[in-house]
Amino acid sequence: MTSPVKTWEFTLPLDPAATEPLFLQIARGISGDIERGRLTAGSRLPGTRRLAAQLEVHRNTVVAAYAELIAEGWLAATRASGTFVADVTPMRSQARRVPRARARTPGFDPGRPGEHLPTADPLADGVLQMGGGIADLRLLPLATIGRRYRQVLQRNAADVLGYGHAQGHPRLLSALAAMLNDRRGLAIDNTQILVTQGTQMALDLVANTLVTPGDIVLVEALGYAPAWAVFRRYGAQIMTVALDDQGIDTDEIARIAATRRIRAVYTTPHHQYPTTSIMSPARRLALLTLAAEHRFAIIEDDYDHEFHYDGQPVLPLASRDTQAVVVYLGTLAKLLAPGFRIGYIVAPSALIDRLTAYRLMVDRQGDLPLQLTIAGLLEDGTIARHARRARKVYAARRDWLIASLQRALGSAVAYARPPGGMAIWTGVATDIDADAWVTAALAQNVAIRAGRSYAYDGHYRPYIRLGFASLDEQELALGVRRLARALKQIR
Amino acid sequence: MTSPVKTWEFTLPLDPAATEPLFLQIARGISGDIERGRLTAGSRLPGTRRLAAQLEVHRNTVVAAYAELIAEGWLAATRASGTFVADVTPMRSQARRVPRARARTPGFDPGRPGEHLPTADPLADGVLQMGGGIADLRLLPLATIGRRYRQVLQRNAADVLGYGHAQGHPRLLSALAAMLNDRRGLAIDNTQILVTQGTQMALDLVANTLVTPGDIVLVEALGYAPAWAVFRRYGAQIMTVALDDQGIDTDEIARIAATRRIRAVYTTPHHQYPTTSIMSPARRLALLTLAAEHRFAIIEDDYDHEFHYDGQPVLPLASRDTQAVVVYLGTLAKLLAPGFRIGYIVAPSALIDRLTAYRLMVDRQGDLPLQLTIAGLLEDGTIARHARRARKVYAARRDWLIASLQRALGSAVAYARPPGGMAIWTGVATDIDADAWVTAALAQNVAIRAGRSYAYDGHYRPYIRLGFASLDEQELALGVRRLARALKQIR
Repeated sequence: MTSPVKTWEFTLPLDPAATEPLFLQIARGISGDIERGRLTAGSRLPGTRRLAAQLEVHRNTVVAAYAELIAEGWLAATRASGTFVADVTPMRSQARRVPRARARTPGFDPGRPGEHLPTADPLADGVLQMGGGIADLRLLPLATIGRRYRQVLQRNAADVLGYGHAQGHPRLLSALAAMLNDRRGLAIDNTQILVTQGTQMALDLVANTLVTPGDIVLVEALGYAPAWAVFRRYGAQIMTVALDDQGIDTDEIARIAATRRIRAVYTTPHHQYPTTSIMSPARRLALLTLAAEHRFAIIEDDYDHEFHYDGQPVLPLASRDTQAVVVYLGTLAKLLAPGFRIGYIVAPSALIDRLTAYRLMVDRQGDLPLQLTIAGLLEDGTIARHARRARKVYAARRDWLIASLQRALGSAVAYARPPGGMAIWTGVATDIDADAWVTAALAQNVAIRAGRSYAYDGHYRPYIRLGFASLDEQELALGVRRLARALKQIR
Repeated sequence: MTSPVKTWEFTLPLDPAATEPLFLQIARGISGDIERGRLTAGSRLPGTRRLAAQLEVHRNTVVAAYAELIAEGWLAATRASGTFVADVTPMRSQARRVPRARARTPGFDPGRPGEHLPTADPLADGVLQMGGGIADLRLLPLATIGRRYRQVLQRNAADVLGYGHAQGHPRLLSALAAMLNDRRGLAIDNTQILVTQGTQMALDLVANTLVTPGDIVLVEALGYAPAWAVFRRYGAQIMTVALDDQGIDTDEIARIAATRRIRAVYTTPHHQYPTTSIMSPARRLALLTLAAEHRFAIIEDDYDHEFHYDGQPVLPLASRDTQAVVVYLGTLAKLLAPGFRIGYIVAPSALIDRLTAYRLMVDRQGDLPLQLTIAGLLEDGTIARHARRARKVYAARRDWLIASLQRALGSAVAYARPPGGMAIWTGVATDIDADAWVTAALAQNVAIRAGRSYAYDGHYRPYIRLGFASLDEQELALGVRRLARALKQIR
């Protein structure tokens, strides 16, 4: 239990009409708090004058209370310094103390356990995070962002600190719409976009709106577990579809659609997560056509659009969505940082209205001060400049990692150079156990992820995923050396 | 459609291997974008050199594309200024344009409508907000908060900008626990508290965890509609319980409990929302005893604890929760501002674990930069000082409003002076229609709320609720004058 913060005042309930004298009520209140752990051994009590003023009693009443507690052994006084909780205090009755066990389990039925997503344990100091998908926070214009946030608080308080803007601050809606129209081939206005607390909330709202128990949702055989969990939460029946270097197998989707009613397909077509494949033009056309024909939704998760290095930008399915079958999800988590919870959903406006109505029930509104801050940084080009800079840095790091892998690991690994994204989907030689490599790597202080951890069926995949964006060249070289050392341990 | 933001580059997909010449592909891409509304009339296109560099084609190719489009009437050029989208452009085929209607409704079944909470329409300028329950943002130490946020970004980036801390930043958990232990008689540690995006998310997580379809949840007959909506979302069967000046009628709860299985009771015992009654000590004891005996949860929503003006502080049910039946909800929305989304749940740690697991699926984590900022302001007493200052200001405003009401409205209204809270629950004389008064008041540019809007049964109540916290004395006097004028209109 932490010591009471000095700036807080103690509160004790008193009843002047009771038969028990006030000084004893005060004494019992203090000893009760010591028993319950509100006051810990060695804590300093307020001076008698101060407590008396606060409780609106005569100072002598508090003096008497303290004297009683000193006599009973609850408090100890030093002449100059004040009155303190004794180091060893008498415990009155067991019944008055809330047993530790009870503080863990409720006195009512705790209800259904539900599905638990794994929480990410923080890495120990010194462990290199090469698991992938994390931006380099050191590149962020944090001084600018902080300065702007402060300005927003002072200049726009009434606009951002009250209730409202559940769909998102209008300036952020406009700035995001402009970005998406200019950069990603969309043609939307403010009625077709909703700002969420990151991709996770976007998935939760979309699934809540679209999925009824038993609905079939198709997912790529390797993918993003937190999304699957959300679909399952709403009772979806999940079926997996095979992946290859052109992305999701649309022939398989066509076969499923011929006999089953598909509610939605969840896909990451830009840099498929985790394999980094880009969905080919033919597959894109096929998927859009199937969705329109069979009236299912395509939930397009475009989580790292900005980081494309080679060749022309690949525009999202949403840019060719003439039949309005795409629900497009984006986020600033990779572009800025996961800690800035700014995601968005693009969809037909009737659906945006419905999603906003659900959002009101989930958390009422997003973080408006941050939203207006980000809007300004989009409007004046700060974020665009950051994106261009980060893109160059990450492209170079991708190349550096590939060179390091060639030097240090040679034919132990195989990979296609990804044209974008923040990780390399790395095949391991047939005599290497990818799962064992991950464990051995952690013992060498480098954290990577094994292919199995992305597989819906949980089965082994001879792959590891290596992230390069958040590490500079020295760190990447160090990480690869540690990987090589780990490999020696297990091969 | 907004004009493209100047700092963004245009993106067009090109296929060098196609039979169609590159300059025509470029021309078609631009005209297609004009048709779809990505480029609006009068927008300036990039210079030929810049676009050529971006598309990695010869400049002459872009010159040819622009010339083609000028010839066809899509673009217009002025000699010095550049090339612009023409004001009147030819439309190619209807099929290529996304009809406006389609952009509203999706090409798949939009799914169940669900319950819609009313969105708060922003008030027109000049309308005094006397609907109640809003803090005065002008009292906030916004410069300090902004400065601290900026410092957190620069000093603690790695800690607050990555993934993690789904339960809440550890320093905020500790600071809130210390505040609750010192000020509200709780005895908790970090394992018994979860930070949420405001009270709404707290309600959503708790209901999600506790309520299965058909479960009975008891609510006060007058109360907080967004909470009812959340219980209904999870299939609760809501039953109302009568209120009087001692709060919720626990005899009625005992009668219900004798024959039905109650899952939870949702209550605001400190300053009952909206009637401001304080739950009496006898009722508190009765409720806790019933909950332990019948094993139902008490969801205690202590939304404005700090603002108690008269007499001793009233400690929450959670401070006497020896049987671990209370799930305690708090928020900083009234203490700071609703725009700072910081709420919390206090519960036995096994339940906190489960709530955190659900939270991960809803939005993954809260706003960590803000959480660490707030933690620092709790630790160093800034928020405590603000609370003391606001309490004094609000107490004075309560008295001022009462004096104004007496002067201006006399026997038209009746009320008990609330010992705390941010509003006065005001009875209206029998010849006054409270609903009509609300409408007439808005026409006089003052917004208040009628009793009916808090009633679960939606029936008329001869009350209005008048908030005083966010308005200074001049504004309160003005508001009351407008109320009096409105009353003359309808009486």
